[in-house]
Amino acid sequence: MKDYEYYMNKALSCAIKGYQNNEVPVGAVMVYQGKIIASAYNQKDSMNNVLKHAELICIEKASKKLKNWRLNGCTLFVTLEPCPMCASALQQARVDKVVYGTPSTNNKNHYLVDKIFSEVDINQSISYVGGILQEKCGNLLSDFFEKKRL
Amino acid sequence: MKDYEYYMNKALSCAIKGYQNNEVPVGAVMVYQGKIIASAYNQKDSMNNVLKHAELICIEKASKKLKNWRLNGCTLFVTLEPCPMCASALQQARVDKVVYGTPSTNNKNHYLVDKIFSEVDINQSISYVGGILQEKCGNLLSDFFEKKRL
Repeated sequence: MKDYEYYMNKALSCAIKGYQNNEVPVGAVMVYQGKIIASAYNQKDSMNNVLKHAELICIEKASKKLKNWRLNGCTLFVTLEPCPMCASALQQARVDKVVYGTPSTNNKNHYLVDKIFSEVDINQSISYVGGILQEKCGNLLSDFFEKKRL
Repeated sequence: MKDYEYYMNKALSCAIKGYQNNEVPVGAVMVYQGKIIASAYNQKDSMNNVLKHAELICIEKASKKLKNWRLNGCTLFVTLEPCPMCASALQQARVDKVVYGTPSTNNKNHYLVDKIFSEVDINQSISYVGGILQEKCGNLLSDFFEKKRL
């Protein structure tokens, strides 16, 4: 398997597409057996739907690809630490691992996501790693909020 | 607005359809200005997608109907207490109120959902009421697990 930065750069490319489409720039890729089987950027505003976070679009695409809602063996790379909705979805989809770029600046979000990943009830554990290309992922977001939303 | 039991009975009718389709029987309806604008039952297995919980399908349908991801003014009635994924989605969609039938039997689920609803960061509060037609909603689930999954 290629290293974390390789896949995070792919997620970052997705986030940049989001930026160009005036969406909060978060990108994600789902990796299975070393291959990217799904990629997406956040499309909440253009799709008018809170469910269109990059992570959930990746879950949907990956489930279609594998013809299974169980995504055992998959790793999700995402440029921003997930929200509780996405974290819980990833846990229920049984992904093996979640790797994120920049941490959430929201303490409650971080606390909840940590609880969701660390105390799972079903027979499963999720690895959870952050800080991969953190500066690049974070700068894209702060640049977006400075330039596009002011 | 009609009373809680009226709408919960509608959600229960959806759950029964789920039962008939061999899905874990959870049903939901989204109500706006007294009118049901979306209804759904859990379709996780038939759609092969963890995102197809009744609540999320209702959010998607209601957003389409109102042409807005913001569901202010809406109340979601669901036969089973939501999971963290659905609770966080409902919070992000800014629904006013969530009314559920039977409580989750999973303590961690209950704790997380309570945290998600009670300590929201955006300028919003969500009413959260449970125990409406609890016995009917719960019996449908226990009957399903006894008869269909053994």
